Amino acid sequence: MPGLSEFELIETLLKPLAVNAPGAFALADDAAIMPEPLEGHVLVITKDALAVGSHMLFDDPPGDMARKALRVNLSDLASMGASPVGFFMALCIGRDTKDRFLKEFISGLAEDVDRFSIPLMGGDIIRQDGPFIVTITAVGSVKREDVLRRSHAEPGDSLWVSGTVGDGALGLLSARGQLGTLSARSQAFLSNRYRVPQPRVETGLFLAGLVSACTDVSDGLLADVDHICKASGVGCRIEQDAIPLSPAAKEVVQSNKGLWQTILTGGDDYELAFAVPAARGAAITDLMRTGPIQLTRIGIFEPGSGTTLVRADGVGVHWEQLGFQHE
Amino acid sequence: MPGLSEFELIETLLKPLAVNAPGAFALADDAAIMPEPLEGHVLVITKDALAVGSHMLFDDPPGDMARKALRVNLSDLASMGASPVGFFMALCIGRDTKDRFLKEFISGLAEDVDRFSIPLMGGDIIRQDGPFIVTITAVGSVKREDVLRRSHAEPGDSLWVSGTVGDGALGLLSARGQLGTLSARSQAFLSNRYRVPQPRVETGLFLAGLVSACTDVSDGLLADVDHICKASGVGCRIEQDAIPLSPAAKEVVQSNKGLWQTILTGGDDYELAFAVPAARGAAITDLMRTGPIQLTRIGIFEPGSGTTLVRADGVGVHWEQLGFQHE
Repeated sequence: MPGLSEFELIETLLKPLAVNAPGAFALADDAAIMPEPLEGHVLVITKDALAVGSHMLFDDPPGDMARKALRVNLSDLASMGASPVGFFMALCIGRDTKDRFLKEFISGLAEDVDRFSIPLMGGDIIRQDGPFIVTITAVGSVKREDVLRRSHAEPGDSLWVSGTVGDGALGLLSARGQLGTLSARSQAFLSNRYRVPQPRVETGLFLAGLVSACTDVSDGLLADVDHICKASGVGCRIEQDAIPLSPAAKEVVQSNKGLWQTILTGGDDYELAFAVPAARGAAITDLMRTGPIQLTRIGIFEPGSGTTLVRADGVGVHWEQLGFQHE
Repeated sequence: MPGLSEFELIETLLKPLAVNAPGAFALADDAAIMPEPLEGHVLVITKDALAVGSHMLFDDPPGDMARKALRVNLSDLASMGASPVGFFMALCIGRDTKDRFLKEFISGLAEDVDRFSIPLMGGDIIRQDGPFIVTITAVGSVKREDVLRRSHAEPGDSLWVSGTVGDGALGLLSARGQLGTLSARSQAFLSNRYRVPQPRVETGLFLAGLVSACTDVSDGLLADVDHICKASGVGCRIEQDAIPLSPAAKEVVQSNKGLWQTILTGGDDYELAFAVPAARGAAITDLMRTGPIQLTRIGIFEPGSGTTLVRADGVGVHWEQLGFQHE
């Protein structure tokens, strides 16, 4: 058991993360009181768990682990069009967790608490006989009529995605040393994309009330677009050539076309995938030109069900050509 | 890895727990939308984590583990005077977790979802290489001016406690077979008190707006009363003889006086400890006569700091007499 007591952890390291939340009572009560939502706003809540060895690698920097744990939750808030309000955290300290790990973890977390203006409002610390696990519950606020759901895409809406796709899953391969022939620069870029996602909070706020459906790319582009299709009762054609790849991902598929499977199904991108009605195309194009992040039109929703991958000429891509079978 | 996929777990077992929460979207979106609080109400949120081997015993019935995980959170809501709104759960499935365990766990959870009218609104399922861990985030609602805090006890307020104290910690000893000479009936009673806490939700709702401070007895009576003292800037004298013990706990201390230490510091009782201003004494006495649960006056807050244990004649009890040292 590390030398840091639960009391020291809370008093010294965690309490400073709660100063901007009056309702957190300096982490010294049984529960926190949420601030009253703005007129016409609702609170949205999401919860994610991450374990070392499963969602983070044993030798990832602890500060990056903390940022990832918070950011995957922020990505969920972004995909609802919500702005961050506060978060709750359970630290499940494992059998091998060192004091130094905890200090670096919380120090990394503190940076993101500032960066995303999201105070810690409560939680729990336990010790257990497994790997280090962190679960975070994030609370956001969004105007009731602007909430982004997965369920309102219509045939004719176009499918857009923020940023570049596939970097997260390729980054995991890179961090594991499985992309040995790749340039060091690309390796570093991809690993970092895996370790420290960039939740698209600003973009989500802009899209709120503007697009018809939205989700974040966490399970893999095809699976996540399929979630929109299922929830909306539509199908979707995705143009493979339109999918935005980072220079590093392009370098990867140039040498190994089979890794398109990883790009399309690997997940961990934390970009936003969203459905844009024709009437809203101009607003999105404006945002594409002036906004903080690249937005790319990659497909179109249609009557029916399921996600189809096509070439620019509309011909369907068989999964076998990509070296894998569609599940 | 168990045969149940995450999809099956959610679709078959968890989705039914979400039917009464429209904002949970059948667990099929990135986050849940909280219902708008009633006029003048605020949402309160608490989060607790429990691991098998640490907070639950390996051979506890899985359904009881689920009930305990939910109920310790309900107890936190009760101590704020809040009524349950919904909860979020992260299931961290361990290396040895079996399908049957998960089914029984969720089946036990389902019973309490009904009993306490608290729907599941979201969460996460992960697999990891340690013991089974569950973290729950519970959301409650309470009238803004009625929120119970730890911080408003005044000198002269009396200290009350619901139910009986010490059963939880003695129950852990019993469940571990460490109270061998105790009658089977008392063993069963105490073990059950450890495994399945009774959160005092109704009592908390009644106390809201009536008492000056409240907390739940989770860390141990002395520690939890001390939390009120610290938060309120007061001291407290507790009359040892007034502390309500169950018949089983009485049987325990009759044969081993040293176990008073366990009763006073062991925790896991999930009763409410609260401060009653003199003017509110009559209302509490009424509740004591007609309410669902025994309420007992066990002490008085006073100027100063710290918690003192005294006999009925006011003479201080030295910790050494109880066989332990006060931390």
